[in-house]
Amino acid sequence: MSSPLRLGIAGLGTVGVGVVRIVQSHATMLALRAGRPIRITAVCANSRKKKRGIDISDYAWEYDPVALARRDDVDVVIELMGGENGAAKALVEAALKNGKDVVTANKALLAHHGHALAALAENHQRSLRFEAAVAGGIPVIKALTEGLAGNRIQRVMGVMNGTCNYILTRMESAGLPYDTVFEEAGKLGFLEADPNLDVGGIDAGHKLSLLSAIAFGTKVDFDSVVLQGIGAVSIDDIKLARDMGYAIKLLGVAQMTGRGLEQRMTPCLVPETHPLGQLQGGTNMVVIEGDAVGQIVLRGAGAGEGPTASAVLGDVMDIARGLRLPTFGQPADTLAEAPAAVVSTGAPWYLRMVLLDKPGALAKIATILGDSGVSIDRLRQYQHEDAHAPVLIVTHKASSDDIALALERFADSGVMVGAPVALRIEEV
Amino acid sequence: MSSPLRLGIAGLGTVGVGVVRIVQSHATMLALRAGRPIRITAVCANSRKKKRGIDISDYAWEYDPVALARRDDVDVVIELMGGENGAAKALVEAALKNGKDVVTANKALLAHHGHALAALAENHQRSLRFEAAVAGGIPVIKALTEGLAGNRIQRVMGVMNGTCNYILTRMESAGLPYDTVFEEAGKLGFLEADPNLDVGGIDAGHKLSLLSAIAFGTKVDFDSVVLQGIGAVSIDDIKLARDMGYAIKLLGVAQMTGRGLEQRMTPCLVPETHPLGQLQGGTNMVVIEGDAVGQIVLRGAGAGEGPTASAVLGDVMDIARGLRLPTFGQPADTLAEAPAAVVSTGAPWYLRMVLLDKPGALAKIATILGDSGVSIDRLRQYQHEDAHAPVLIVTHKASSDDIALALERFADSGVMVGAPVALRIEEV
Repeated sequence: MSSPLRLGIAGLGTVGVGVVRIVQSHATMLALRAGRPIRITAVCANSRKKKRGIDISDYAWEYDPVALARRDDVDVVIELMGGENGAAKALVEAALKNGKDVVTANKALLAHHGHALAALAENHQRSLRFEAAVAGGIPVIKALTEGLAGNRIQRVMGVMNGTCNYILTRMESAGLPYDTVFEEAGKLGFLEADPNLDVGGIDAGHKLSLLSAIAFGTKVDFDSVVLQGIGAVSIDDIKLARDMGYAIKLLGVAQMTGRGLEQRMTPCLVPETHPLGQLQGGTNMVVIEGDAVGQIVLRGAGAGEGPTASAVLGDVMDIARGLRLPTFGQPADTLAEAPAAVVSTGAPWYLRMVLLDKPGALAKIATILGDSGVSIDRLRQYQHEDAHAPVLIVTHKASSDDIALALERFADSGVMVGAPVALRIEEV
Repeated sequence: MSSPLRLGIAGLGTVGVGVVRIVQSHATMLALRAGRPIRITAVCANSRKKKRGIDISDYAWEYDPVALARRDDVDVVIELMGGENGAAKALVEAALKNGKDVVTANKALLAHHGHALAALAENHQRSLRFEAAVAGGIPVIKALTEGLAGNRIQRVMGVMNGTCNYILTRMESAGLPYDTVFEEAGKLGFLEADPNLDVGGIDAGHKLSLLSAIAFGTKVDFDSVVLQGIGAVSIDDIKLARDMGYAIKLLGVAQMTGRGLEQRMTPCLVPETHPLGQLQGGTNMVVIEGDAVGQIVLRGAGAGEGPTASAVLGDVMDIARGLRLPTFGQPADTLAEAPAAVVSTGAPWYLRMVLLDKPGALAKIATILGDSGVSIDRLRQYQHEDAHAPVLIVTHKASSDDIALALERFADSGVMVGAPVALRIEEV
């Protein structure tokens, strides 16, 4: 059996503790599978005294992450501190420069600095791996980078923020408005310190940008992800969508189009019969479509101690077994600078609006849609309330440009009460 | 860029043609991702003249697979001939002995000779890889062997024969009996030359035995897989199961128990709300449960040119990138000889029977169940027909032994018309 692989863990929160537990409890199994022992030699966190329910007395202790990255008795640095800049970035850079491999769960760091860090890793002939950064325990980075490497990827989709999916499915099952469920989620500890990271789609957008880079061989480009949170999704929309056979999900979609790379993280309608539509609670799902393989669906826990630690260990085991791959599946200097698609691919849209109950109002709306190049597939006008007529329209395929144009004209139509709701129906 | 990886392909049926198509059409992409060109240098099949819709004029031709395995210009032999013995086995052995890596889609070969071939590969420090042998395009071997390598696996389940799932879901959607749909499937070309490989559960059983070996670190033991085909599943059972919220699937289950390794490929009831219960048509699904990761669900096409070729290419790309792993995730000589579990773990059971419509018949059945250690959770007696009373029972958790005992006693009870149907309800 070869020499042990020595781990230095920076960050002993939930995930760090999970990694320590696995390495300690499964030592024999891991050694058998890796062909060499996996050992923790040093750890680093803010407080040495904090009760964590694990025994770390055998490990060297560092208060300074960069000192951890410089230790001679560490082969792999596991970065579990979080944060897109600052200490985490300094640690990863120091580790790579000191010839250590790096495993991280930090999606924000990679969404912002992934390309530079990948290049740094490759220059130092080290691995920088991040299975745990996307969709928790689901081995999606591996599936995309390795298992499906023979495919030209056509589209990647995903429900990758468990909190948002919990909120949306709970709104429906309990018939509660967004604000109430949002509060509940906060009390249950499901929300990040800055809840906009969750409900604003930022966290899920980070993850999508990493999948895009692998799928399409492009530089990570988080800034071009079209982000729309779930705050504007009402219980009415959820119910009306369900009546028509759809579920509303915060869905990430990335695809390469003739007009550039399209990356969206927005609330969408998906068919309730598709696995995406059936996804309940905090579970994550990633859908990968390749030209040879067709559609692959991966489902599992997107967060939590065990699932995230499982993903970290997957990367550690690869390193222990000698697998060396460029971070995004091809050398960083070959990743393309893809222009962001300004207009999204065509899709049917769900439009909900309230019209003034006066003659010709519906005709006006229909005319505006036609003039904007949007044709109507289905239309329902509901029973009037207070001289207001709720109207629901499902369009035929339309570009986001045409929909935007129609929405602009609606605003000037003089027949509309409030702003209309427009949600894309993603065809899966 | 490094030297090209040179492929020799044995077998130019559907999958072989698919592999050639990908290598030819995606050469640049594959080279970028692998860090070296992927080239086909030689092919081997029965007929050189057959129209295949691909240009193979640049490749050396061999009629003898073993000659292919001996060529100096071949680094990797791709075995797509099929068959558990004979030419395929001779080819794989010759290739490994001649220092070639091997990629195969041959589940029957590995189910019967996997352990010996894995040992041979490891003795020659070569790779023997088989992603395409299990669940088509789903990268499940990779997920289990690598991505989830930090987990002690608790259970692996799968719907891994698309033909059986097609037949079962088609029976339900069209309300047709088994025999009619079986004939349809034959006409559509969905059945193997020996249809018992499909509907008898043998093909799916082969696949399950391979997953078991990786999951539990045991020698492949196909002979211990409890096999039961779908021929005995009636449209009545499908409908009654649905009424109670279940779907019937040919489900493979492998788990390590205190009494040995349990491997079953049998028709089971699964909750219609679980992804397994929702699986329609020829699609495959594998469910992996690990102590850290929880439940991971993988879904995709289980057969066909593109999906299977995608899996072959995944293995080829791993070899091109220098990944070297023991075939079953740990050295062959460390795989344990696990005793097969004689009694399955406890589960609720679905029992359907027809009773003679005479006083005390139901009481007799209930008494037999109680005496056999099986308690009743739900019982329905349906309207009588012809002095026969159809009865449906869902039991509480019972072992397969206790159920077998009850069935034996039913046969001697004198109140039963025909044989009862007993299907396990797999708790997922």
